[in-house]
Amino acid sequence: MHAYRTHTCAALTAKNVGETVRLSGWVHRVRDHGGVLFIDLRDHYGMTQVLCDPDSPVFAEVEKVRSEWCIRIDGEVKARDESLVNSKIPTGEIEVFVRDLEVLGEAAELPLMVFGEQEYPEETRLRYRYLDLRREKMQQNMTLRSDVVASMRRRMWDQGFREYQTPIITASSPEGARDFLVPSRLHPGKFYALPQAPQQFKQLLMVSGFDKYFQIAPCFRDEDPRADRSPTDFYQLDMEMSFVSQQDVFDAIQPVLTGVFEEFGGGRKVDQEWAQISYKDAALWYGTDKPDLRNPIKMQVVSEHFAGSGFAIFAKILEQDGTEIRAIPAPGGGSRKFCDRMNAFAQKEGLPGMGYIFWRDQGDGMEAAGPLAKNIGPERTEAIRQQLGLGVGDAAFFLGGKPKSFETVAGKARVVIGDELGLTDTDRFAFAWIVDFPIFEKDEETGKIDFEHNPFSMPQGEMAALEGDPLEVLGYQYDLACNGYELVSGAIRNHKPEIMFKAFEIAGYPADEVRKRFGGMVNAFQYGAPPHGGCAAGIDRIVMLLADEQNIREVILFPMNQRAEDLMMAAPSEPAPEQLMELGLRVIPQD
Amino acid sequence: MHAYRTHTCAALTAKNVGETVRLSGWVHRVRDHGGVLFIDLRDHYGMTQVLCDPDSPVFAEVEKVRSEWCIRIDGEVKARDESLVNSKIPTGEIEVFVRDLEVLGEAAELPLMVFGEQEYPEETRLRYRYLDLRREKMQQNMTLRSDVVASMRRRMWDQGFREYQTPIITASSPEGARDFLVPSRLHPGKFYALPQAPQQFKQLLMVSGFDKYFQIAPCFRDEDPRADRSPTDFYQLDMEMSFVSQQDVFDAIQPVLTGVFEEFGGGRKVDQEWAQISYKDAALWYGTDKPDLRNPIKMQVVSEHFAGSGFAIFAKILEQDGTEIRAIPAPGGGSRKFCDRMNAFAQKEGLPGMGYIFWRDQGDGMEAAGPLAKNIGPERTEAIRQQLGLGVGDAAFFLGGKPKSFETVAGKARVVIGDELGLTDTDRFAFAWIVDFPIFEKDEETGKIDFEHNPFSMPQGEMAALEGDPLEVLGYQYDLACNGYELVSGAIRNHKPEIMFKAFEIAGYPADEVRKRFGGMVNAFQYGAPPHGGCAAGIDRIVMLLADEQNIREVILFPMNQRAEDLMMAAPSEPAPEQLMELGLRVIPQD
Repeated sequence: MHAYRTHTCAALTAKNVGETVRLSGWVHRVRDHGGVLFIDLRDHYGMTQVLCDPDSPVFAEVEKVRSEWCIRIDGEVKARDESLVNSKIPTGEIEVFVRDLEVLGEAAELPLMVFGEQEYPEETRLRYRYLDLRREKMQQNMTLRSDVVASMRRRMWDQGFREYQTPIITASSPEGARDFLVPSRLHPGKFYALPQAPQQFKQLLMVSGFDKYFQIAPCFRDEDPRADRSPTDFYQLDMEMSFVSQQDVFDAIQPVLTGVFEEFGGGRKVDQEWAQISYKDAALWYGTDKPDLRNPIKMQVVSEHFAGSGFAIFAKILEQDGTEIRAIPAPGGGSRKFCDRMNAFAQKEGLPGMGYIFWRDQGDGMEAAGPLAKNIGPERTEAIRQQLGLGVGDAAFFLGGKPKSFETVAGKARVVIGDELGLTDTDRFAFAWIVDFPIFEKDEETGKIDFEHNPFSMPQGEMAALEGDPLEVLGYQYDLACNGYELVSGAIRNHKPEIMFKAFEIAGYPADEVRKRFGGMVNAFQYGAPPHGGCAAGIDRIVMLLADEQNIREVILFPMNQRAEDLMMAAPSEPAPEQLMELGLRVIPQD
Repeated sequence: MHAYRTHTCAALTAKNVGETVRLSGWVHRVRDHGGVLFIDLRDHYGMTQVLCDPDSPVFAEVEKVRSEWCIRIDGEVKARDESLVNSKIPTGEIEVFVRDLEVLGEAAELPLMVFGEQEYPEETRLRYRYLDLRREKMQQNMTLRSDVVASMRRRMWDQGFREYQTPIITASSPEGARDFLVPSRLHPGKFYALPQAPQQFKQLLMVSGFDKYFQIAPCFRDEDPRADRSPTDFYQLDMEMSFVSQQDVFDAIQPVLTGVFEEFGGGRKVDQEWAQISYKDAALWYGTDKPDLRNPIKMQVVSEHFAGSGFAIFAKILEQDGTEIRAIPAPGGGSRKFCDRMNAFAQKEGLPGMGYIFWRDQGDGMEAAGPLAKNIGPERTEAIRQQLGLGVGDAAFFLGGKPKSFETVAGKARVVIGDELGLTDTDRFAFAWIVDFPIFEKDEETGKIDFEHNPFSMPQGEMAALEGDPLEVLGYQYDLACNGYELVSGAIRNHKPEIMFKAFEIAGYPADEVRKRFGGMVNAFQYGAPPHGGCAAGIDRIVMLLADEQNIREVILFPMNQRAEDLMMAAPSEPAPEQLMELGLRVIPQD
């Protein structure tokens, strides 16, 4: 007989009745029913009920075991009394009568119970992560994560991609976030950096002729604490292809993601047709470049109905350049109570408020209610209603000014309206590509032009486009939005050195600065660079969506806390003086 | 038509004759045959011959292209003249007549040619790695590596293992090598470390109840330069299982490795039966714990034949405690010339020399030649010959003293003898488990007892064994030897805190020191730790064996040079003063 088990704790069924078996696992729970001891014995695979009474030769030893002890038992499989069959678990038809017991690992007093639903502070959970991870939901989340990653790999291979590992100890690659540095012992005073993303390496792979690359890649960023991200690192499904257009990249990644969401989405609907929405339209329609399309609300420009109208605030706004009035239609939101609540929401978000109109049944017809309707009069009100396709019981909210000043709040209001009115389909994964991002943006305060997104993207229209107004230049640059999150980001790359230098010049980086920062890649582009592009999908986020978790630490095995500490392993810690000496470093005393 | 290609450069055959196609790739070579230009167009998949004469509308542009330019061509597929068919490549039946050309990326003057077999200094190859990687052998090595890793994953999944990612930014884990440190910005003066191996985390996963773990894991060690290893990091197929004995681990990993070697070994024989050889026997028979078993030579103890014999040196040696005389049989080595060469080899390795006997045909019988035979006389000589099973044309070499003093040289001599006499089968992968490593060893100089291998292994006999002579304690600890390399290393772990503390105490580490160094794991073992064990296989080494490469940098995409520098990316480099400031660090000026 095997030293530890003939079966896992999920394997025994009525077919095994009468057999002598050996099981190993953890004591999930012990119950004493009038001198008969029942133990739920748990392992990674499942749970088996074992029991023992004074007839057993090891009764006295079984009496001693406690929750979370790791034990091995030998015993006979017996059929449960029909009234005691548990059809919810695979082993629910049987129980095992214990004849022998070996304690494999005792447990000290538990700081955290595995059995039951008790909540513990996050610090406790992270300090005793090995106990926390024994809980059913955590086992599920981690195996889900593992299975999602495995599925991604299989799907990428099936499409002819190969996985290549790029360096982790490498050069600083200033991509916007802060690098983690690694001091060099052989070159004191010099530092390596951990990669913020394999961006440069994957592009170098394309220059090296490796046509289709992917990698489940760790990315390292020294981020300031925030609840929904790891302060140190995250994982991406990173991919890149040569000789492709934007549509080729979409066609490669879409089946991988729909496949993964269908496989692990628990039956939730997965959109098969992915719209392509321009960055500009996304801002207008949804107030964000990562819209939640499960929410059917689409905002519209309604400036014409307010220009020169009796609603002086909007009429005045529209006299300034670059202003607009936009409407958020709210089907089913036609009550003053709801409208007032949304107006209060906008005020809480820092706007003066949101004007609204709602339509109600008024005996012999429809009435448009609210102060705004009175100000602009029935004709304009009716024109708005018709444009928005609304009717009795519906409402519309209005925001005006320069779009940048209210777009974000409008986007948030759209989400709240969709949620509160039950318009948002929660059992669905809704995807859309956001395309045509501008290459540059202007800092409103300094007036300085900088890259909007990623300095490595190819401008649409290439060199000719860069010779016009930079703020008009769009890039072959795209994000994938899913349920309100940015799940993927990518671009067709700028593989032509002269166009790259020109783009950097516009953003204020002289050529020698570019060579210094991105030397490896810029040099490589001089030696026959192919057109190429790709994207990276956020794995932590995908698993969070699939597992329906809001906190990233629920889908990572051994996460840091929000102060970037590992309480279990005691990291970070003070180095030994010899280590600092070897690295040629001194710690500056902190006040 | 697709913007860049209708086919790859490996796709066109006689079936496509007459079609208009589009290809993209690199100009591998241009030849001018009397006004007709032939270009070998290369991509990741293969090569296609394209040609152009003055009838082509783009002849003048094609004349300008040079090696390694990246181009796109349109043209007609034509059958080659029968005499020009190249049956060695899939596209050898056809050529493409160029009608249109687009230069996708020009190439500056090349520091390194992709075409041809020219050798370049390693520094040049690493600085221009993206050109070096375009070479056929490098493309093969990197795709081989990718395919090997993919195959390992598939095979581990098929056996019910799941891959889990363990932290990369974590705590210092003193496992013998030097850590890479990562300064913390949020906790100035404190440092994280990159893991030397996921050892503690994989054991914590077992304590967390994840029954079968594996990971293609990067391991980071700040190593001093050596030709056959990376100075920064390497990859392991790391695995761990709960509720297992040593044999279970062997049974899990052996099919994975034999499968991979059969799949990618290019037809070389792969041993299916893996012997289990004790550490002690390996030292005796092969002079090493990583024997090359393709070499059939097995050393033997022959002390009895020299004790009190006329060969005074050996006879005297044997009067001391702990000494032995060992023989290296050398079938086919029976010539004075060969024996003298091997004697010189031993002297070069720092020994006084190796005694030898060789047997030659002497008219009416066999003669044992060499000074040693004379000294000990014909009876002893004949007894030795019979023990070793040698005959005419064979030789034997002899080494004496305390085994530790000559074992290593004996092992090397065995390799040289096997190679020189053609005994070693080069078309084979020969595997053996080396088992029963001692847990402790004694430092000859200080007399101090320390761990021989790995402090986390379970001693055979558990606590009882630790109460006897520590140097007699063997561990459930094993290596896999393949063709003279250590390919895998592993152990059944010591999961019982009291046995672990006792083992550390013997090695001179007090309990509080153990808690400080391995706190995460030691704490965890108090809460119901399961018996567990596993191993880790060196991926770089496996790929080197399969690719028949001696230099680890031939199987890594972007390796560091031996001074731990990345010449292409310019790492390590000096940090910005603000970065040091944020980290609370100062660089100590070097003299």
